[in-house]
Amino acid sequence: MNKPELRLSQIKDVDFGIHVKVVEPVNLYGCSIGDHSFVGPFVEIQKQVTIGKRVKVQSDSFICELVTIGDDCFIGHGVMFINDLFADGRPAGNRNGWKTTTIGNNVSIGSNATLLPVSVCDGVVIGAGAVVTKDIKEKGTYAGNPARLVRKL
Amino acid sequence: MNKPELRLSQIKDVDFGIHVKVVEPVNLYGCSIGDHSFVGPFVEIQKQVTIGKRVKVQSDSFICELVTIGDDCFIGHGVMFINDLFADGRPAGNRNGWKTTTIGNNVSIGSNATLLPVSVCDGVVIGAGAVVTKDIKEKGTYAGNPARLVRKL
Amino acid sequence: MNKPELRLSQIKDVDFGIHVKVVEPVNLYGCSIGDHSFVGPFVEIQKQVTIGKRVKVQSDSFICELVTIGDDCFIGHGVMFINDLFADGRPAGNRNGWKTTTIGNNVSIGSNATLLPVSVCDGVVIGAGAVVTKDIKEKGTYAGNPARLVRKL
Repeated sequence: MNKPELRLSQIKDVDFGIHVKVVEPVNLYGCSIGDHSFVGPFVEIQKQVTIGKRVKVQSDSFICELVTIGDDCFIGHGVMFINDLFADGRPAGNRNGWKTTTIGNNVSIGSNATLLPVSVCDGVVIGAGAVVTKDIKEKGTYAGNPARLVRKL
Repeated sequence: MNKPELRLSQIKDVDFGIHVKVVEPVNLYGCSIGDHSFVGPFVEIQKQVTIGKRVKVQSDSFICELVTIGDDCFIGHGVMFINDLFADGRPAGNRNGWKTTTIGNNVSIGSNATLLPVSVCDGVVIGAGAVVTKDIKEKGTYAGNPARLVRKL
Repeated sequence: MNKPELRLSQIKDVDFGIHVKVVEPVNLYGCSIGDHSFVGPFVEIQKQVTIGKRVKVQSDSFICELVTIGDDCFIGHGVMFINDLFADGRPAGNRNGWKTTTIGNNVSIGSNATLLPVSVCDGVVIGAGAVVTKDIKEKGTYAGNPARLVRKL
């Protein structure tokens, strides 16, 4: 009987701003989380992620490497970010094949939404369950799979 | 180096019926869970949620404030409930801007489904991965994003 | 005040190959996980699941009974497998009513994807947020809800 190599979820090498709240267990490593932000339970945030001030990251979400999130954003429950498009039909294998995601300020992302590597401008709402496959350059509410503009704001 | 305020996921102020089973870690607070129900791991259930008898809430799901679930329901894995429509282009900020969800009896919700604030009648099946955006008043199976009736029951 | 029956997520009766890595907390029981595979945190894998060699199962995913996964697969974050179609308008009640899922080798499944009980051939890519409702017999990238071929590989 082989034994697996076990590691416990942890908070390691995270650059926290002031007054950040975290509900454990979480798996956060090598990222930066701004002042007055909140991270709920069962969340993983990978290295070199930058999260702004007054951002809420809710339970069961995942934020991958190469994601930058502005200030005053709301990341719902079960939201998943992506950095690898499996462009060659499989995982890229290393960071050189990954793409960046940039989320502006005052962006609200509904629960169970999925974001491919995209750029999203300030003030956008992503509907719950939406799959965002393209850059969003105009303020509004976007929903569906793939996500489309459903209402201007 | 700032230190975050850490809190551990917990079971706090929950009104349990008889013979309820819970697999930890979970984050349950201020809710009511009926007789013979089950809650799987990595689940969050917020305050003032009412869950009936013989309900199964599976792993990685999230049930928000203002949700009421009847008896004999099945809530799959990774199911997310919503109470805030971001109607003004951002989180409502307080409970007055949130909407209620009511799930009847014998409702079965597939994994990774997302439910906006809606009312769902007895005996409905929500397909896996569906996004429910409107009230459901007729028994049947509903699937897709947005969810539509795909089969009468 | 009733007290629930509490159980802690655990690793129980798992047949591990060599050099498997697991990030706890996880809930793994009665399954088989091949050499050099990885399981991220907040994952549940049920009994009689067989996972091949060099497979990555990322955080917040769920793999149910009757799923078999080949070698060199990537299972993204928040991916959910299904074995019960609620064919009679409710959970099947027992294993006789469940269906199998078979995933070939070199299959890459994007985050937040949902897989009904299907068969997926070698070398397939499932896009993030896709809902796979039918067998996939041809190599390619499949995306959307329901998932459709979007690119041949």
